[in-house]
Amino acid sequence: MDSNQNNDVGILAMEIYFPPTCVQQEALEVHDGASKGKYTIGLGQDCMAFCTDVEDVISMSLTAVSSLLEKYQIDPKQIGRLEVGSETVIDKSKSIKTFLMQIFEEHGNTDIEGVDSTNACYGGTAALFNVVNWVESSSWDGRYGLVVCTDSAVYAEGPARPTGGAAAIAMLIGPNAPIAFESKFRGSHMSHAYDFYKPNLASEYPVVDGKLSQTCYLMALDSCYKRFCAKFEKFQGNPFSLSDADYVVFHSPYNKLVQKSFARLYFMDFLRNASSVDEAAKEKLAPYSSLSGDESYASRDLEKTSQQVAKQLYDAKVQPTTFVPKQVGNMYTASLYAAFASLIHNKHSELVK
Amino acid sequence: MDSNQNNDVGILAMEIYFPPTCVQQEALEVHDGASKGKYTIGLGQDCMAFCTDVEDVISMSLTAVSSLLEKYQIDPKQIGRLEVGSETVIDKSKSIKTFLMQIFEEHGNTDIEGVDSTNACYGGTAALFNVVNWVESSSWDGRYGLVVCTDSAVYAEGPARPTGGAAAIAMLIGPNAPIAFESKFRGSHMSHAYDFYKPNLASEYPVVDGKLSQTCYLMALDSCYKRFCAKFEKFQGNPFSLSDADYVVFHSPYNKLVQKSFARLYFMDFLRNASSVDEAAKEKLAPYSSLSGDESYASRDLEKTSQQVAKQLYDAKVQPTTFVPKQVGNMYTASLYAAFASLIHNKHSELVK
Repeated sequence: MDSNQNNDVGILAMEIYFPPTCVQQEALEVHDGASKGKYTIGLGQDCMAFCTDVEDVISMSLTAVSSLLEKYQIDPKQIGRLEVGSETVIDKSKSIKTFLMQIFEEHGNTDIEGVDSTNACYGGTAALFNVVNWVESSSWDGRYGLVVCTDSAVYAEGPARPTGGAAAIAMLIGPNAPIAFESKFRGSHMSHAYDFYKPNLASEYPVVDGKLSQTCYLMALDSCYKRFCAKFEKFQGNPFSLSDADYVVFHSPYNKLVQKSFARLYFMDFLRNASSVDEAAKEKLAPYSSLSGDESYASRDLEKTSQQVAKQLYDAKVQPTTFVPKQVGNMYTASLYAAFASLIHNKHSELVK
Repeated sequence: MDSNQNNDVGILAMEIYFPPTCVQQEALEVHDGASKGKYTIGLGQDCMAFCTDVEDVISMSLTAVSSLLEKYQIDPKQIGRLEVGSETVIDKSKSIKTFLMQIFEEHGNTDIEGVDSTNACYGGTAALFNVVNWVESSSWDGRYGLVVCTDSAVYAEGPARPTGGAAAIAMLIGPNAPIAFESKFRGSHMSHAYDFYKPNLASEYPVVDGKLSQTCYLMALDSCYKRFCAKFEKFQGNPFSLSDADYVVFHSPYNKLVQKSFARLYFMDFLRNASSVDEAAKEKLAPYSSLSGDESYASRDLEKTSQQVAKQLYDAKVQPTTFVPKQVGNMYTASLYAAFASLIHNKHSELVK
C-alpha cells in the first residue's frame, strides 16, 4: 500500500452500453425538413441513440457495471471505490452511485467510497482522475476502483436536437494497467461561462448558445494544449507537436467539432513553428498568423483551410477514435471514453508496446 | 513532488460563512403552534440560519473562499485544485465550482482541477478526501487545494422544517498540516436507500422519511464504527474504544441526533466489552444486550438509557463540537465541518500536541 509501489495506475478494463434504440441522422434530416447532409456531413454523425421510457442513466450504468464485472470475472467484493460522472440529474440529492450500490450490497460489500461528479461533460474525467489519485494515495486499500460515465443527452426541438445521444461506460482502475496515465503533463482550463447549462430544473433540456459554446470549447482546448506542451517541454526537454502523438482522442458532441478541434491544434503547432507542419501547410496557414485569438475563432476561412491541411494527419491519428461517437451520438461525460474505446477496438494490436 | 514526501496532508486553514438572517427556535415553536421545547430540547437546536432572496450557495461560497484567501494571504495563483461538495442544485449541469472560478480568473489562474461532488451530505467529505488524495498522488503540482462545502437546507412545512440551516465552509488543503488525516483507519458504509432524496427537481424541498432516515443513519454509523475499530486494531495492535478518542465529531442535522449517535457508539463499545464503559453503565445496558440490530434501533428505552450513561463522556468529547451547528442549524455537506470548526474554536490551545 505504499503509494510509490503503484506504478502505471490506469484503466484495466472497459465496458460500454448504449440503448438499442436509435435514429438514422439521414431520416432525421427528412423528418426535420433539414437540407440533405446537414446532420450527416454538417455534423458528421451517422446515428443517434436514445433512451425510451424503460431506460435511463441508472439502468444503463447498472448494465455497464454488471457486464464489466461479469466479463472480467471481478468479484464485487474486490471493488473499493466507485465514482460516477454525469450531468443527467435524476435526483438532486441521491447520487447515481447509491443506485449502483445494489450490485455490491448483495455481495455484502457496502465499504465503497465515491460519489457523483458534476461539471458538464468534464464530470466523467474528474471521476476518473479521482479514482487514479485514490490508487496512488495512502487511502488506497488494495482493491480496484470503478468509474462510470453516463448521460442521456437530449435537446429541445431545434438545431441542437440531432446532437443528442445516450450511453454508459464503466472502467476498472488499478495499478500495472495497460492504459496508464502520465499525470505530470496534464493541462486544465476552467472558466465561468454561460455557453451550456441546465437552469430549468424541471426540464431535461439544456440551454445552449451553440456559437459561444464552440468558441469556449476551442479556447479551452487551446489553453489546455499550451499547458500540455509547456509541461512536456519542461519535463522531456524537447518541444511537443502533434507528430509526437500516436493518436489524439477528443470529446465528441458531434464529429464535426472533433475535426475542427484537431485542425485547431494543428494551427497551434503552426503558430509555434512546430516541426509537424509541412511547408505546403505553412504557406496556406501563413495569411492567418496575424489574427487575434478572437478573430481566429471566428474565421471560417481559417477553419476550412486548417481542416484541409490537417486532413492527412486527422485520418491517421483521429479517425480511428470516431467510430462509436459517430454511431451513438453525444454521450456527454461518456463521449471521450467512447472515442477511446473506439481507438482500442480499431487499433488494439498496434497499441501494445 | 514525490508523493512519499507529502506527510501530514490535511487542513491548513478553515473559513465559515453563514447568513446573517436567522430564526430563534423558541419563536418558531410559537409560530408553528408546537409544544414549548419541541425544537429547543426535542431537537436540541437554538437558532436556524436561512438565506433570503439575495443569498444562495454560490454567493455564500464566493464569500467563504474570498475571505479565506484574504485572511491567510493566499495568492489565488497558488490554488491548483478546487472541489465543491453540495446537494443544493442551482443548475443541473453547470457546477458551483465554475462560479467560484471568477475569483481565480481575474488573477490569470484558470488551471484549477475539480468539480462538484453530489451524494447527499457526504458530498463534502468526498470532496475533501479527493483533494487530500490529489496532494498525495503523482498529479499534485505543488499548489494548494481548496474544498468548499455549502448547502441551503430548507424543508416543506411540517415536522422537518425546524431542521433547516445554511452555510458555506472553505478549507485550505496541503502537506504538513496541523489537522492531518489518518486514512488507513477510515471506515465507509454506502447503501441504496430512499430515506432522504430530492426527486421533485423543480422543488427545493427534499422528500424525507424521518424515521427511516434516522435508522439508516445509525446503521451506517454502526457499520463505519465497526470498520474503523477493526482497522484500528489491525494496524495498532490494540482494540479501540471511545476512551481512546480526544473528541468525536458528528454530522449534525440537529443536535439530538448527535446525542443519539454518541450514545449508540457507547452502546457499541459496551457490546464489544470495551474498556471505556464503566461497571455502572454495563449494568444499566445489560438488559439490551440480546436485542437484534433492528430491535435496538427501535428501542426508545435503550436510546434513553444509553444517552444517560454516555452523558459524562458526551459532555467531555462531543459537547465542544456542537456550538455552531446548534446556532446555525443543518448545513448538510458543511454540517460536519461546522462541528469541527466549533471544536477548534473551543479547544484550540489543547489540540496542539
